[in-house]
Order: sequence, then structure tokens, then C-alpha cells
Amino acid sequence: MAISLRTTLSLSSRSITFFRCYSSSTQHFDLRGYMSAKIQRIDQALDRAVPLRHPLKLHESMRYSLLAPGKRVCPVLALASCELLGGHESAAMPSACATEMIHPMSLVHDDLPCMDDDCLRRGRPSNHVAFGEDVAVLAGDALLSLAFQHVAESTVGVPAARVLRMVTELGRAFGSEGMVAGQVVDIESEGKAVGLEELKYIHEHKSAVLAEAAAVCGAIAGGGSEEEVERLRRYARCIGLAHQVVDDIIDVTRTTEQLGKTAGKDVARDKATYPKLMGIDGARRFAKEMVERAEEELAGFDSSRAAPLYQLARFIGNRKG
Amino acid sequence: MAISLRTTLSLSSRSITFFRCYSSSTQHFDLRGYMSAKIQRIDQALDRAVPLRHPLKLHESMRYSLLAPGKRVCPVLALASCELLGGHESAAMPSACATEMIHPMSLVHDDLPCMDDDCLRRGRPSNHVAFGEDVAVLAGDALLSLAFQHVAESTVGVPAARVLRMVTELGRAFGSEGMVAGQVVDIESEGKAVGLEELKYIHEHKSAVLAEAAAVCGAIAGGGSEEEVERLRRYARCIGLAHQVVDDIIDVTRTTEQLGKTAGKDVARDKATYPKLMGIDGARRFAKEMVERAEEELAGFDSSRAAPLYQLARFIGNRKG
Repeated sequence: MAISLRTTLSLSSRSITFFRCYSSSTQHFDLRGYMSAKIQRIDQALDRAVPLRHPLKLHESMRYSLLAPGKRVCPVLALASCELLGGHESAAMPSACATEMIHPMSLVHDDLPCMDDDCLRRGRPSNHVAFGEDVAVLAGDALLSLAFQHVAESTVGVPAARVLRMVTELGRAFGSEGMVAGQVVDIESEGKAVGLEELKYIHEHKSAVLAEAAAVCGAIAGGGSEEEVERLRRYARCIGLAHQVVDDIIDVTRTTEQLGKTAGKDVARDKATYPKLMGIDGARRFAKEMVERAEEELAGFDSSRAAPLYQLARFIGNRKG
Repeated sequence: MAISLRTTLSLSSRSITFFRCYSSSTQHFDLRGYMSAKIQRIDQALDRAVPLRHPLKLHESMRYSLLAPGKRVCPVLALASCELLGGHESAAMPSACATEMIHPMSLVHDDLPCMDDDCLRRGRPSNHVAFGEDVAVLAGDALLSLAFQHVAESTVGVPAARVLRMVTELGRAFGSEGMVAGQVVDIESEGKAVGLEELKYIHEHKSAVLAEAAAVCGAIAGGGSEEEVERLRRYARCIGLAHQVVDDIIDVTRTTEQLGKTAGKDVARDKATYPKLMGIDGARRFAKEMVERAEEELAGFDSSRAAPLYQLARFIGNRKG
């Protein structure tokens, strides 16, 4: 999951090109203010969920990655999905936090020398550089475990059977059917010719599944029907893929437009990307299609309540950096 | 968690010295046959829980450690605790399997070069030697995630609120309040003088907590009252500690009795052990006390149903190798 919204939010909301399906209530929606308020409460909840206690080094390591500024798209997706269905934000907060525990723990393990061997993460030393490899492995393990525990013990006002469904969804999203599967296939594909189907598999499993789980957990917390839950699952899958395609386009565009500078990371590594496999115009069409499909899934919901999710899809589809 | 019962079961049941609190129904109980039958069904359930599917290498790695022959004490504890309270084995099987997913995943991560750097596990190459460090990290992650998912989606015939309690118990047992905490404190204590309190903390958190969680999950699945659940928690903590002390004694005794042979691993590493801190006789008394306390927790339960747990405590306290 590599969705960074902080950079997105630094764009003026006036720069957005709207796709179809928007209503007057969504047009004037202040996404920046909405995100800012949500992120503040998510950060407070994350801070409370992992207090600094014995053993100190372990909890410092967990908090170092968990509370690092930046991405909060998945938890916001969870809260917005819950509120779309009339639920209160608090019902979805533990599962929202769980997605934000899973996300950094996957990065901590991905950064290890035996994986991507990245020494920097968001401009700071990676967790294993700051705390040692052994503690980084264990901090990742502890965050993963806490994600499930936190949902089970802290979700209130939601029937227990629904909370169990959230646990199941998070497990499927992360484990050997989800993010871990995507990472293994990605590792195995290095140095090989990768087709569009395999690339889609990798991106769906490395990135889109956690967004799906976030939206689904929010929908379950909000009391959604089966149909509503599945609509939000498809919405989240589409914006997860759109984000990845846009990421790929930005990487290539920078390389083309800024000749003389370091080539894009993916190009340098000769990694399979959407622009490489379908051309830049094809990739742009694909991203646009994903955003449109995401918007279609929102049709039928109350347009005022759906405004955050409409705007989120558009931002993701239109960001330039 | 380093409880090995296979070696224990190879001892003749006639060699057991019984402690107090036994009844005629427990005296003639065939622990070997009981364990054998339970282990067979646990292994079948584990095999079904992790089928060999795409991505193959990931699932091979997960199954390599999960299905390795040997330890099944925690899942048996879960099933026996459930049946003690009149529950059916099947109600506790998913949480029993969950403890047996957590146990090997902790070993896979412990064996990594950045942790204990062990190349062999139970006479076979460690997971990271057989599948690579990257896959071993991910297989461990996937097993941990599956443990929670499996309990949430596969436990049947138990009220959802009780299943959520199981998820919480497993999270506490594993995470930064449990096994991970014990491992971090153990790592930090290397090369330092360790007192009895710290040693007890390490052993309780590295070993006893998972046995506790297993017994507690079984008791919850079996419909136990709060008092019954807590009795079984204390029972399991006592036998978890007894097992560790006996392990330490065996390590030292071998060193003393088999002069000329390689010294015990803990002695060679100058690690803190119970015999080192309280003398061999003191350690033996402590182990005996733990088994007696475990037995006391079983008083008041139906003696026939409690027979497996009585016998398990005695075996653990009396094993010689």
C-alpha cells in the first residue's frame, strides 16, 4: 500500500477536474478540511492504542513507524464508509486504526535488508536502521497482532458477529491471500517478463486489498447491507488501482519531462508498470476508467454523505505528484 | 514456547511419580493414547487450514513449519480445557490451531539471521535456509495473520462475543504484552546479570503466555464461567513455567553427569537459568511447586474430565529428557 495523500492535499482543491456523477453537494465539499480533521482524530486514536510502556525499545519502535506523519488514506476510507451508511465514526475507529497498523508493519518488514533493503522511509532512517533488525522484525509482528486484537477488544456499538467479520476481512487482506501473496509474487517476478494480468495481481494484492478491507470494515461498522458492503469493496478496489496507475504515470512522466535528471525508480529498475505495458495514454485511460467505476459504485447512496468518497476518488485520479 | 511433548511421551507412563490430588480416574488415564488421538486430529485441521495454493512457495514455506512433526501441547491444552467444561472438541479446534500457527511463526522469526541465527530446527534446515529469508519473514507474517482470521471465521457453535474474547486473548499472548515482549527483554538481557524476577518475566512472556491463551481459549469455547476461565489460565501458567524450569534442570544435569561431552547450551552461553539462580535443588522444588499449584487449580472440576490436564501437568514436571 503506497497511497500518499499528504502530497495530494497540498494541491489546491480548485485544481481538480471533476468527472461525471458529481452533485452540487459534492462539488463544494472541502476535502482538505475533512481529511485534516479525520487525520487528527486517527492520530490521537493510534497514539492511545500504542502507549509507550515496557519494554520501551519495542514500543518506541512500534510508535516510530505507526505515528510517522503521512499516509492515512485507509483509515479515512474506513471512517467515511461507516458515515456514508449512517454509522458514527467511533464505531469504525478501531478497524480504521487496524488498517493503519497493518500498513506500516508491512513497510517495516519490506524495508528489511533481506527484502527491499531500504535504509530510508519518508526521509527518516528505516525502522531497522533506527532500532536494529531484530527489534524491527518484532515490532512489525507486534503491530500486526495488535491490529486484530484492537478490533476485537475496542470496537463498541457494533454486534459481535459483525466485528468478527472485520477480523476476517483484515486477515484476508493481509495474509497469504492478500498483501503477503502480492509481495511474494512481486519478489518472484523480479527480472522476469511480467504481463498485464500478473501486474494487476501484484498491485491488487500489494495495494488495493488493504483499501478494500478498510472500506469494507467501515461499511460493516456502519451497519451496511451485503450489497452496500460489496459496493464499497469495489469502490475501494478501483481507487486502490487508480492510485497505483497514477503513481506509475507520474514516475514515467517525470523521467520524460525532466531529461537529465535521475530516471524514475521503476524505469531504472526495469520494473513492469502500467505505462510500460499499455502506453501512457492507455494507462491514463485506465486510471480514468477506475475513478469512473469507483464513482458509479457510489451512485444510489446519499450524495451529501458520499461527498468525501467522491472527492477522494477524484483527487487520487487527478494528482500530478 | 519450547514445550516438546513428543520426547515426553516416549517415556513409559509407569515411570511417572504421582504428586498429590490424583484420583483413581486420573491414575489409569492413558495420556499417550489421548495425546496421539488429539494430535492426529489437530494435524488434520492444520493441514486443511493451510492448503497448498498460489503462491506455492509461500504456502510451502508456511506448511513446512506448521506441519513439522513435534510439539502440539498448546492445541491439546485448548481442546482438553474445552472438554473439561463439557464443550465439544470442535468448538475449540480453530483456536487450538491458532496457537499452533503462532508457535511455529515465532520460531521462524526467532531463527532468522538477525535474531538467533539458527540454521537447524528439529533436525531440519530452518525455514529461512529452506525458502530464503524474505519468504520466511513473509510466511511468518502470514501464519500470524491467519491465526486470528482462522479463529474469527472458523469457530462455530460459540457465541460471537466469546470468539472475540479468544481473538483478544491470542493478541495479548503474542504481541507487545506477550511473547514479543519476552523476546525483546531476552535480547536486551544478553551479556547482563539477570535476576530471578527478570528471568521469570522472560519465561512467562516467551513461553507460558501461549499455553495460557490456549487453555483460556479452550475454556471460553467450552462455555466456562469467568472463575473457570481464570483457574485454567493459572493452571496453564504454572505448567508453562514448570516446563521451562525442567528444561533448565535437564540442561544442567546433562552437563554435570555427562562430563567430557559438550556442555549444555544455556551453560555454554552463560544464560540465566533457574538452576543457576536458585540451585538445582531449589529449581526442582520450584518445578514441583508449579505442578502442585497447577493441580490445585483443577480441584473442583469433574475428576474424570480433568484427567488429561492432571496427567499433562505430571508429565511436564517429571520428564527427564
